[in-house]
Amino acid sequence: MSSRVSDYVDGARLWQRLMNLAAFGATPTGGVRRLALSPEEIAGRAELVRWARQLGLMPAVDDISNLFLRLEGTQPNLPPLLIGSHIDTQPTGGKFDGAYGVIGGLEAVEAIASSGKRPRRSIDIVAWFNEEGARFAPGMMGSAVFTATRQLAEIEQVVDRNGRSVRQEVDVVLAAERELPRRPLGFAVAGYIEAHIEQGVLLEGAGIPVGVVTGIQGKRTFRVEVFGEESHAGTTARAARRDALASATAIYRALQDAMNDEADEVRFTVGMLTVSPNAPSVVPAHVVFSIDLRHHDPETVKRLGDLIPEICEANRGACTVSVRPLLYDPPLTFSADLRMRLTAAAARIGVPTMELLSPAGHDARYLHYVCPTAMIFIPCRSGISHHPAESITPEHATVGVRVLTELAFELANE
Amino acid sequence: MSSRVSDYVDGARLWQRLMNLAAFGATPTGGVRRLALSPEEIAGRAELVRWARQLGLMPAVDDISNLFLRLEGTQPNLPPLLIGSHIDTQPTGGKFDGAYGVIGGLEAVEAIASSGKRPRRSIDIVAWFNEEGARFAPGMMGSAVFTATRQLAEIEQVVDRNGRSVRQEVDVVLAAERELPRRPLGFAVAGYIEAHIEQGVLLEGAGIPVGVVTGIQGKRTFRVEVFGEESHAGTTARAARRDALASATAIYRALQDAMNDEADEVRFTVGMLTVSPNAPSVVPAHVVFSIDLRHHDPETVKRLGDLIPEICEANRGACTVSVRPLLYDPPLTFSADLRMRLTAAAARIGVPTMELLSPAGHDARYLHYVCPTAMIFIPCRSGISHHPAESITPEHATVGVRVLTELAFELANE
Repeated sequence: MSSRVSDYVDGARLWQRLMNLAAFGATPTGGVRRLALSPEEIAGRAELVRWARQLGLMPAVDDISNLFLRLEGTQPNLPPLLIGSHIDTQPTGGKFDGAYGVIGGLEAVEAIASSGKRPRRSIDIVAWFNEEGARFAPGMMGSAVFTATRQLAEIEQVVDRNGRSVRQEVDVVLAAERELPRRPLGFAVAGYIEAHIEQGVLLEGAGIPVGVVTGIQGKRTFRVEVFGEESHAGTTARAARRDALASATAIYRALQDAMNDEADEVRFTVGMLTVSPNAPSVVPAHVVFSIDLRHHDPETVKRLGDLIPEICEANRGACTVSVRPLLYDPPLTFSADLRMRLTAAAARIGVPTMELLSPAGHDARYLHYVCPTAMIFIPCRSGISHHPAESITPEHATVGVRVLTELAFELANE
Repeated sequence: MSSRVSDYVDGARLWQRLMNLAAFGATPTGGVRRLALSPEEIAGRAELVRWARQLGLMPAVDDISNLFLRLEGTQPNLPPLLIGSHIDTQPTGGKFDGAYGVIGGLEAVEAIASSGKRPRRSIDIVAWFNEEGARFAPGMMGSAVFTATRQLAEIEQVVDRNGRSVRQEVDVVLAAERELPRRPLGFAVAGYIEAHIEQGVLLEGAGIPVGVVTGIQGKRTFRVEVFGEESHAGTTARAARRDALASATAIYRALQDAMNDEADEVRFTVGMLTVSPNAPSVVPAHVVFSIDLRHHDPETVKRLGDLIPEICEANRGACTVSVRPLLYDPPLTFSADLRMRLTAAAARIGVPTMELLSPAGHDARYLHYVCPTAMIFIPCRSGISHHPAESITPEHATVGVRVLTELAFELANE
């Protein structure tokens, strides 16, 4: 019998589970549409619970529907180690964003159990509620509430486009999973490890299979509403119009100009824009759009984000505008100790690593406020994610989980 | 007994019917949402049929669901006179656009019947299918098919946003009205009169209660699709993006610049714009938007409309774009003979009139291709229409119908 838990990682089993989970919400183009709290996600969670029970893990859920699958340690009263990510996707997402961290965690735990060794601390595999923020904005709600970064009472009231609230839809999930024990929100944890696809091209470009994530770039999001007045497209003179789309477009262009850095490091996106009444012969009365702004430098994130309200106001034309800040997550740096130990764990099983920054947000952001946190990246083809073409290789998937398994076992024994 | 049919117009009864019809699809803000072929419109049509039967009129429907309510003349084999408009509304429409022409026609016919006189020709009050084009674009489908300007087979295949086709939804209406006799599409007609709110401010500004419409400005509509590529808002560099909304916005701005005439006579509107996948943290892959272009001068309509494809192409950035022309209605002039007779009919009952151009399209456009056609405008407050605040006075409503009744009786006796 080998002396390393990572030797028990079964790449074929890992890949099979990734493909099986991708069937829940599979789209004709090879992607996945598994929105938070959708029937597809509920069905995917049920599959996770079935797998967990086969492995002898203990499933549990908390009040915001974070799902936990526990491998009990020899000292179950110690705070557990958490490994995980999320299984919700964007409306036109892929198979691996989020899913890799959860299924990878399951494989790591199965490898540890198969090795005949048992860690001191329990290990919880966690699937956080609503990381993507596609249906209920902003994202990372489950980890935010778990870490008390945001309040349950506030999150519960967020509604989707059909007016359904987080509370209503979480209750649907909890009813579907009523046989699972309920955990309190935000129990003490010893550490958190999240494995994820890079969503960038650095690992691919360098030919390195595993990234040690140094931190996450800063992110601010806003919701802008432009209020004009409906009028008849055939009769209303331009001077008499209060066209919400014309104003929104002028605002958008001015924002683009302001965010346009030569180094191309600012990430500025208007991904959502909705027009009312949205009829070809009616001058639009109302436009809502999202702003997503990211950068690795705290000063830049602050400065550019602070410009947004005044740019909106200066370009509103005949309409009125309101700007609501939704999220302000400054850039962060992960625990230097865990980064070192992650690099060492990879080295001892012969896996080359490189350090890199995460351009995307992850649940690890919130966990790092409450416990030592590490993130492991694996390459994804051409950096494509949030897209049906999202792709990884079985080899990279396996190597990433082997490193994860080594680090998890080490941390769970402390 | 008076010698004039217009003396039998009952303004209170007219107003009461306008208010009763406005209850079908009434919104909390005082407007009306009665989309073509919606349950609200079907219920409104049933109310029209009830009223018609009380007056001894004969209801009938054709294959595209145009609704006819016939007062039989003394020589029923002569082609009938048509009076009407439509009862569908914009998604956030008002009480009078369209409804006034149909209810006004009903009142005119009731006045004629009450006078004890009977016209030679039958008079059909008509409610045309889908004038607004809000749910199924473009509008004026019923009159276009009736006049063979467009083909039934083509119109039937148009789908709404939920993928329901005109054919499917018309069949729902026809099933609800299966007890009504079916008329062939496009029978011979002797003339058409449409009474309508002005949707402009000329009558209000001049203090004149009735407008004699000289013609309708030209209109071209287009559907533009921009195809980009989904990518992650946090990871994708600006240079690597193919952002469909960024390209659509650049196109929109360039179109605005090209259409921006100093005289403010060009009517250029993007009223509908839809983003996919429309998620805050996904770079948009696909945008569809509408273009509505109108002007009174045929050369200008042609020249500006012809510019649109090249402007879209020149500003598409990293995306691709397709431009589909939907509608090209050149400016038109109504029958000079009927305009003279309309003016004379108003004069003989002491109603001042003025001539004016219709900036909006109406079913009268298509009818004028097949028969002498006249339009009567009444003032609407501040020119507001396609809006819950759309407003007319009972006095203007009554005066307009008195003129309509005079002209209708005269034409129906020829």
